[in-house]
Amino acid sequence: MTPINADLSPNFKDHAAHCRWLLDNGCDGLAVLGTTGEANSFSVAERISIMENLVANGIPAKTMMPGVGCCAIPDTVELTKKAVELGASGVLMLPPFYYKGVSDDGLYAAYAETIERVADERLRVYLYHIPPISQMPISIDLIERLLKAYPDTVVGLKDSSGVVENMTGIAKKFPGFAVFTGGDQLMLDLMKAGGAGCITAVCNIAPHWLKEFYEGWQGDNAQALQDRMSQLRDIIISFPQVPALRAVKARQAGDAWRPARPPLPTLDQAKSQELYKKLDDFGFSMPDQTLAAAQ
Amino acid sequence: MTPINADLSPNFKDHAAHCRWLLDNGCDGLAVLGTTGEANSFSVAERISIMENLVANGIPAKTMMPGVGCCAIPDTVELTKKAVELGASGVLMLPPFYYKGVSDDGLYAAYAETIERVADERLRVYLYHIPPISQMPISIDLIERLLKAYPDTVVGLKDSSGVVENMTGIAKKFPGFAVFTGGDQLMLDLMKAGGAGCITAVCNIAPHWLKEFYEGWQGDNAQALQDRMSQLRDIIISFPQVPALRAVKARQAGDAWRPARPPLPTLDQAKSQELYKKLDDFGFSMPDQTLAAAQ
Repeated sequence: MTPINADLSPNFKDHAAHCRWLLDNGCDGLAVLGTTGEANSFSVAERISIMENLVANGIPAKTMMPGVGCCAIPDTVELTKKAVELGASGVLMLPPFYYKGVSDDGLYAAYAETIERVADERLRVYLYHIPPISQMPISIDLIERLLKAYPDTVVGLKDSSGVVENMTGIAKKFPGFAVFTGGDQLMLDLMKAGGAGCITAVCNIAPHWLKEFYEGWQGDNAQALQDRMSQLRDIIISFPQVPALRAVKARQAGDAWRPARPPLPTLDQAKSQELYKKLDDFGFSMPDQTLAAAQ
Repeated sequence: MTPINADLSPNFKDHAAHCRWLLDNGCDGLAVLGTTGEANSFSVAERISIMENLVANGIPAKTMMPGVGCCAIPDTVELTKKAVELGASGVLMLPPFYYKGVSDDGLYAAYAETIERVADERLRVYLYHIPPISQMPISIDLIERLLKAYPDTVVGLKDSSGVVENMTGIAKKFPGFAVFTGGDQLMLDLMKAGGAGCITAVCNIAPHWLKEFYEGWQGDNAQALQDRMSQLRDIIISFPQVPALRAVKARQAGDAWRPARPPLPTLDQAKSQELYKKLDDFGFSMPDQTLAAAQ
């Protein structure tokens, strides 16, 4: 998630503190500026500032997989170059998402043009398949074509389709290609099929539980760890997801976390209290974020 | 439509020649940088250059209603300010379109924030309702709320829903609010309900036919003029629409018009020939574009 100031500008210090807290509490990396991070609600210049300020505020660039996919190729190229230059381990790249029903030829051309304009051996692209939001799915044929043309560059995919057969199918079909699920409820199935891990919205409040899952998914307690995350997610998505996560974070780290940038709304006080009660009843709590990190 | 060079950059001269031809052959205004103009495939800087170069190449700014709606408020604000500063009569404003299922509260906040940041009495906003592509509809409640808050600023809507009852309903409910249809096939119904006119993709090749319709829709020949446009549209949309229109324009003004910017594909030669034959059989031809205008 990306915290903002009262004038809707990014709050760099709180963002770095949140990212530090995620790393300290179990995350192996940071998919900053993704869907939950409201990337597309920020301009290219703001997104560059957000990446630069994380590094300036002590977040190791190599932990970052920033979201860079825009509707316009020059924007995606600019963000990708900046991420690579900063030292990010990879980038999470949406397809251009304004047009719908675009052929694989068109999407391939857009990805190829982007990769060739960036023209950097260090580039590692993770494709971002999130049809419920982008409405522009990434087909298995497209993955295959990109892997053939750019085997050292196109290295993985985040699958937020919610369709478990899609992500396990991709993981099995392309060994070595890193498949992350965008859904906490599908982690165990994906890991069993050879998946790489997860990049989820709920991780913004539950890195500790996800760490326990990741360390335990091959053990006797795997299903219980999966079920706990699934249930936590069910509580969150019974509210608008990003506003709900911001409200939970606000309870830990201050009210400035509440408002999202429009068009995403803010969860009102009544709904927030309802959410807090559900989480308390469920026994969920977040590890503290130290003041030192927040300042 | 926005022509491009071989390196995918905008071709300013050909664009101005096309816009001049549209005005000379019946258009009352130019919805530049709309969906068919691939606005969202260009960066903000490119979109500003496109607007500036049209004016520099002799297109009267007051004829222009540029598309300015982006996912990020700062981008929409920057484009809108530029359009107003250049002297455009209005702007066509998509809602932020990355997130889906956003509440009217969220969309209202985004439009309000944008209008208040632009803070210019000269601003005239036309809302852009195009659910098949944006997947973010503009509800009648939202229109009502925006009209109440910004009665001198929010002055109209382009409706590309394809749902005739929606556009005629809006035209009847809000007298004086200018409703344009995005579908050539719905013009007569909309005009009879008090609509303002049309802003359509097919207009890029048929300004002369649309002019005849606009002048004749209250006469005895109205249905025949409507049917002719509907049939022309049916031919075009039996192919991917923007690539097909570019192929038709290429036949008139040169092959440089063929390629769209990715992710939109280019119509291949076989399909182009099939399209040309259908148009010839139907008796459609475009008025010439003079060399003087093209150079």
